[in-house]
Amino acid sequence: MHSMNDLRARIEAIFPKMVQLRREFHQAPELSFCEENTPRRVAEILQQLGFHVRTNVGGRGVVGILEGGKPGKTVALRADMDALPIQDEKEDCPYRSRVPGVMHACGHDGHTASLLGVAEILAEIREEIAGRFVLLFQHAEEVVPGGAQAMIADHALDGVDAIYGVHLWTPFPYGIIGLREGRLMAAADSFHIEVIGKGGHGGLPHTTTDAIVAASHLIVNLQSIISRRLNPLQSGVISVGHVHGGKAYNIIAERCVIDGTVRSFDPDIRQMLKEQIERTTKQTCEMVGAQCEIQYDWGYPPVVNDGTEAKRMIKVAQSMIGDKNTWEISPLMAGEDFSYYLHKIPGCFAMVGAGNEEKGYTYPHHHPRFNFDERVMKTSAELLIRSGIDYLTTHDQTIVQNLSRS
Amino acid sequence: MHSMNDLRARIEAIFPKMVQLRREFHQAPELSFCEENTPRRVAEILQQLGFHVRTNVGGRGVVGILEGGKPGKTVALRADMDALPIQDEKEDCPYRSRVPGVMHACGHDGHTASLLGVAEILAEIREEIAGRFVLLFQHAEEVVPGGAQAMIADHALDGVDAIYGVHLWTPFPYGIIGLREGRLMAAADSFHIEVIGKGGHGGLPHTTTDAIVAASHLIVNLQSIISRRLNPLQSGVISVGHVHGGKAYNIIAERCVIDGTVRSFDPDIRQMLKEQIERTTKQTCEMVGAQCEIQYDWGYPPVVNDGTEAKRMIKVAQSMIGDKNTWEISPLMAGEDFSYYLHKIPGCFAMVGAGNEEKGYTYPHHHPRFNFDERVMKTSAELLIRSGIDYLTTHDQTIVQNLSRS
Amino acid sequence: MHSMNDLRARIEAIFPKMVQLRREFHQAPELSFCEENTPRRVAEILQQLGFHVRTNVGGRGVVGILEGGKPGKTVALRADMDALPIQDEKEDCPYRSRVPGVMHACGHDGHTASLLGVAEILAEIREEIAGRFVLLFQHAEEVVPGGAQAMIADHALDGVDAIYGVHLWTPFPYGIIGLREGRLMAAADSFHIEVIGKGGHGGLPHTTTDAIVAASHLIVNLQSIISRRLNPLQSGVISVGHVHGGKAYNIIAERCVIDGTVRSFDPDIRQMLKEQIERTTKQTCEMVGAQCEIQYDWGYPPVVNDGTEAKRMIKVAQSMIGDKNTWEISPLMAGEDFSYYLHKIPGCFAMVGAGNEEKGYTYPHHHPRFNFDERVMKTSAELLIRSGIDYLTTHDQTIVQNLSRS
Amino acid sequence: MHSMNDLRARIEAIFPKMVQLRREFHQAPELSFCEENTPRRVAEILQQLGFHVRTNVGGRGVVGILEGGKPGKTVALRADMDALPIQDEKEDCPYRSRVPGVMHACGHDGHTASLLGVAEILAEIREEIAGRFVLLFQHAEEVVPGGAQAMIADHALDGVDAIYGVHLWTPFPYGIIGLREGRLMAAADSFHIEVIGKGGHGGLPHTTTDAIVAASHLIVNLQSIISRRLNPLQSGVISVGHVHGGKAYNIIAERCVIDGTVRSFDPDIRQMLKEQIERTTKQTCEMVGAQCEIQYDWGYPPVVNDGTEAKRMIKVAQSMIGDKNTWEISPLMAGEDFSYYLHKIPGCFAMVGAGNEEKGYTYPHHHPRFNFDERVMKTSAELLIRSGIDYLTTHDQTIVQNLSRS
Repeated sequence: MHSMNDLRARIEAIFPKMVQLRREFHQAPELSFCEENTPRRVAEILQQLGFHVRTNVGGRGVVGILEGGKPGKTVALRADMDALPIQDEKEDCPYRSRVPGVMHACGHDGHTASLLGVAEILAEIREEIAGRFVLLFQHAEEVVPGGAQAMIADHALDGVDAIYGVHLWTPFPYGIIGLREGRLMAAADSFHIEVIGKGGHGGLPHTTTDAIVAASHLIVNLQSIISRRLNPLQSGVISVGHVHGGKAYNIIAERCVIDGTVRSFDPDIRQMLKEQIERTTKQTCEMVGAQCEIQYDWGYPPVVNDGTEAKRMIKVAQSMIGDKNTWEISPLMAGEDFSYYLHKIPGCFAMVGAGNEEKGYTYPHHHPRFNFDERVMKTSAELLIRSGIDYLTTHDQTIVQNLSRS
Repeated sequence: MHSMNDLRARIEAIFPKMVQLRREFHQAPELSFCEENTPRRVAEILQQLGFHVRTNVGGRGVVGILEGGKPGKTVALRADMDALPIQDEKEDCPYRSRVPGVMHACGHDGHTASLLGVAEILAEIREEIAGRFVLLFQHAEEVVPGGAQAMIADHALDGVDAIYGVHLWTPFPYGIIGLREGRLMAAADSFHIEVIGKGGHGGLPHTTTDAIVAASHLIVNLQSIISRRLNPLQSGVISVGHVHGGKAYNIIAERCVIDGTVRSFDPDIRQMLKEQIERTTKQTCEMVGAQCEIQYDWGYPPVVNDGTEAKRMIKVAQSMIGDKNTWEISPLMAGEDFSYYLHKIPGCFAMVGAGNEEKGYTYPHHHPRFNFDERVMKTSAELLIRSGIDYLTTHDQTIVQNLSRS
Repeated sequence: MHSMNDLRARIEAIFPKMVQLRREFHQAPELSFCEENTPRRVAEILQQLGFHVRTNVGGRGVVGILEGGKPGKTVALRADMDALPIQDEKEDCPYRSRVPGVMHACGHDGHTASLLGVAEILAEIREEIAGRFVLLFQHAEEVVPGGAQAMIADHALDGVDAIYGVHLWTPFPYGIIGLREGRLMAAADSFHIEVIGKGGHGGLPHTTTDAIVAASHLIVNLQSIISRRLNPLQSGVISVGHVHGGKAYNIIAERCVIDGTVRSFDPDIRQMLKEQIERTTKQTCEMVGAQCEIQYDWGYPPVVNDGTEAKRMIKVAQSMIGDKNTWEISPLMAGEDFSYYLHKIPGCFAMVGAGNEEKGYTYPHHHPRFNFDERVMKTSAELLIRSGIDYLTTHDQTIVQNLSRS
Repeated sequence: MHSMNDLRARIEAIFPKMVQLRREFHQAPELSFCEENTPRRVAEILQQLGFHVRTNVGGRGVVGILEGGKPGKTVALRADMDALPIQDEKEDCPYRSRVPGVMHACGHDGHTASLLGVAEILAEIREEIAGRFVLLFQHAEEVVPGGAQAMIADHALDGVDAIYGVHLWTPFPYGIIGLREGRLMAAADSFHIEVIGKGGHGGLPHTTTDAIVAASHLIVNLQSIISRRLNPLQSGVISVGHVHGGKAYNIIAERCVIDGTVRSFDPDIRQMLKEQIERTTKQTCEMVGAQCEIQYDWGYPPVVNDGTEAKRMIKVAQSMIGDKNTWEISPLMAGEDFSYYLHKIPGCFAMVGAGNEEKGYTYPHHHPRFNFDERVMKTSAELLIRSGIDYLTTHDQTIVQNLSRS
């Protein structure tokens, strides 16, 4: 396939368009489940490129399908479109958010723009494609239950054989691609506990049930779940991020609220952590005569890369940027609803380096000054195209000879 | 002294005035250290009654001095004048507070009105008094550092030999007087602790210092001070009434604030509790690598009734209402800056029953619907007058014969 | 009654006999429930003195009854006879214990000898006594369930109107008598808890239920009972004196044993402490999935002196040694089964100073070098006789004139 | 190399000898650092086989060196020889231990016998070996500091290029070989903590410093090290296996002893755990005013298999027993001083299945009824020989062609 030989040149050629689109999205960010203009714009472009387009998929998702020139398998590539409820605090940035309190602080604008670039290139080489590309522009990745499940339920993966996705990642410098087989990102569940005692005079504890002391015992007791109930060869985290009890220093509190997050990779560990948190809460409160209300919210399951597809993406990345720049990374404690796609079909998710110390792109994701090296959109586009083509090629004899030359 | 024979009748006669004054004060409550109209009104009345009046004593206090007709000792009687930052929620009460968010929810309006009644009667029997009465209308009892210290510093107790005070008390029914020798009310100190860790990602605890876990360990550890360091024959309380840490369920908290109250009666215990709280805080934080800031505020010292004067007041109460209605009560965990007067001179403080189930005066002090049986003002007035006269009589031979006939 | 005029001289006269007897008992101490020679010797002496004697009362107790010369009430005086399983380590003491591992380390030998002295004097003044004396020589005070209950069940108190007892007490110097109305000595209960988890490999905590961690949580949790559930104006103690779990540093323990003592004065507090200990144990174990076995043993109830009889004994003590040497003492955290007698009839228990720094009688009770100033036997004898006589006199007109002269 | 073709047959042929030797050792087990007969017997056999033998290497170790017929690299194979202080409780076993209280309960007898079988076969094929074999019969693996370090210091590895070792393992069934690259077995360190408070009367906690409460707080606090200071993607365990404090239920304990084990794989984690345990201990004790003594003992470092050599051993195992029976196992929380060899030179350690449910070989290692399927000695021997030969062959061109045919 001669078109693959000059893939990088083609991406370079459309890079200005990607930047323009990304900045357009960046100035008009839309919150999860509230995406309107972004999906409309995406659908518009895909249609112009000749894709078969479905809108409002699973809510506000957009699916663009491109039939290749030859028969073959079907590969999906995914981008997410939503922004965060964060006030943009970037200085001297002409394309900063124009929506008060809303910001693309996670880089989904880059994902969308990059995948639209992918669309343009795929449209160009359409005739050479031995199979079908399905581009998923997903809404609502940031907020549970997320858009992925709804899009799947709305047939977004019907007939799809494999899926690839990326997250641009400022903790890694531009030029790096981070990958691993198996567990890549954690399940991130959450809990909200209300300890309900009986308030009263600060000098008369025996007439009360002290909700703050109960909650403190509880938080201490939760530590023993990790230290004693978790297989030390497995990963699990229970973090209480917020506690609030009582109104006055001299009145024993009737209520104390605890909010926390739970991370894990293994389904059994995940279930065990929930059960132990609930058990520990109930017994600790019962011990002191307090009541409790526990709300446990399942978040996204862990992102687990398929072994074969991870090996493929690693091979592709190595061929693009060399072995040294293709990192085998540790699992990340963050979550992603890309996991739902991987529950259905094989696939792989990659972290593409987007940090740049010289340019000041060093803020972590979700930071009010977050920004990224826009060249990552080229890397992402190339990685997705090559991975998809590699999959189709591997499964189709008609183009395998061409590719082996590229 | 024939005037004492009909004391009760005289009090009965001026009771309507007391009620009127009390309701006047009740409708126009003034916060601690903000008393203006109340002391002006008090001073005005005292002047009309022929008292030598000092205003702005120690800030906003009023002192009225009445020279008796005969030489003798000097006795002080004290009332407090301030109200609380509580919204009055009494229903169908024509004299409810007209000041939004401010309310006489502790009965100081009754104290002031009752002591003004005392003033009127003392003025009537002035010639028979073998000594001098000093009436202290104190500002700012509710808020540390209180008005008592400042009034003492401003010479309110100069030349005074003994002091008596009362608190009307709805937990006891009208008709009861509660007294005890020695420790009556607790020292009530307070602390504000800020645990300062290092915030971070909820899934990466090892990169943080979890302020909430540190604070929870601390609150648990504080319990062992009471259980292990406190003499079990002594009283001491450490109550954390307020805890607040973190901003989001999934971000490990950098800071956690703890506010609490500490009650005790014995000076050594009081000092020990402070030291142990500080030590426990420092070591617990040090243990997990957190910083801490501790602000420890001494509140009022305990109210300790003088043995002789308590016996006198008990005897007086018994003569007024009988042995059965004169209760020897347990110490109370609440605080009072009457303690400062008792540090200087002998005296006694009494709790005078003001509750009435039938009339619905059952709300605890500081409750938005607090109210009391106004007849308590008569009991209080009689108790204070009789105690004061008894003291002067005991110390003066010229009237001891008269009194023994009464 | 002229005989009371020279009571002290008579006691002085028989003091050498008391010393001789005390040393006889001291060299041949007998463990609780194993008293043989002591009660036989006691019975022998009482019979010689003309007492009506019952032996094996409630087991090994001896009761001696002396009918006075005139009709009247009946007063009991009590001594205990048992020794402790402690090796006598006194040096250069000719009368040290000759029984290996058994020692009168609590002074019961002194109690018995002193009360035998009392018996001799009462026998002398028999004709003047307006009523009846019942001398109780009790076995087994040191070991629950004690001898008092059994002796009462065996009619030792039948017909008795009041009872007095003393404990010689080295923490107070010779010459002092310590007394108080109401609560004198604590209830001392105990518990034995076995936490049963599931042992296993030290590196595989998730396959085990760690009994040591469960027990540690439990011991920490017990502290909150005292700090939060106990009225701060009341006394209560929970002390774990013994903990033992596991066999090897690298094997997670299946079992951990906890033994503790519980002290209180108030019956409701006593009950509450038991319930909270049981509840805390069950819930803590349940929390981590461990089992538990709790054995809670009620010890002696608190010794609560009757108000009238305590006042009597205080008055008697003051008349003997002066006000200054008659101390109103704080309650003691130790226990005594004298409490059972006081449940049945009015009475009073006193602590009689037996320490002497110069002579080296400074060791605490139950110490292997414990010893006491033997003159305390004279004080004890006088206090018991005078208290008993005072009671009988008060209740009998026939001798009240005589006594008022004494 | 034709000799490799019938390797399995040769091993089969000498299997009876291995069994005989193993049972000989089994009946005469010798404790760590007390090995006498075993090394003498080993040296004797090696000498007969023509090995160059060094005895008393690093204490009681034996090294046998066999020069192959051709030049090449040097490979070491290692067995350990020591037994455990456990009473043999096997029933109806003719070869059970004849030494009271000492038993080969870990299978080192099998290791030694198997490696002697290896020696015999290597001697047979000596001429074909392109290099040198060094057989290490190590003493004292069971007790820190172990024999490995001393043997290395005594030049046991001088000139050695690679090393292989095995542990027969009853948790895996006979027929399985368990292997993994990188971390295989944990670092196992230990600590002994003595909490020193101030003992006293169970009813007077304020006069004491309660060592048991301090120790309980400490054990609870240790849990937070694992839950908060450990990277959740890393492994670490702190287990307190033994706690003992106090002598009587009613006396507050002066001392409480805590013993525990610490497991980890990463050197930084290992160091961190030590520091945090020490810090937590010191601060917890300081908090309550107790003293502490901490003895922290480094155990063996983790066994970390070399990537290349692990791949080699996996390949060899797969060729022997098939892919399905060659398990990629999780790291084990047990420790081994084979780690010291791997610090010096590349190598690999394998776990060879020795369990057999039908025959009742299901007891875990260190159990008084531990036994194993003796056929594991054949598997072990073959695995060690093939791994060593593979290494030499890979590094020597002269035989690589022959081997590729085998």
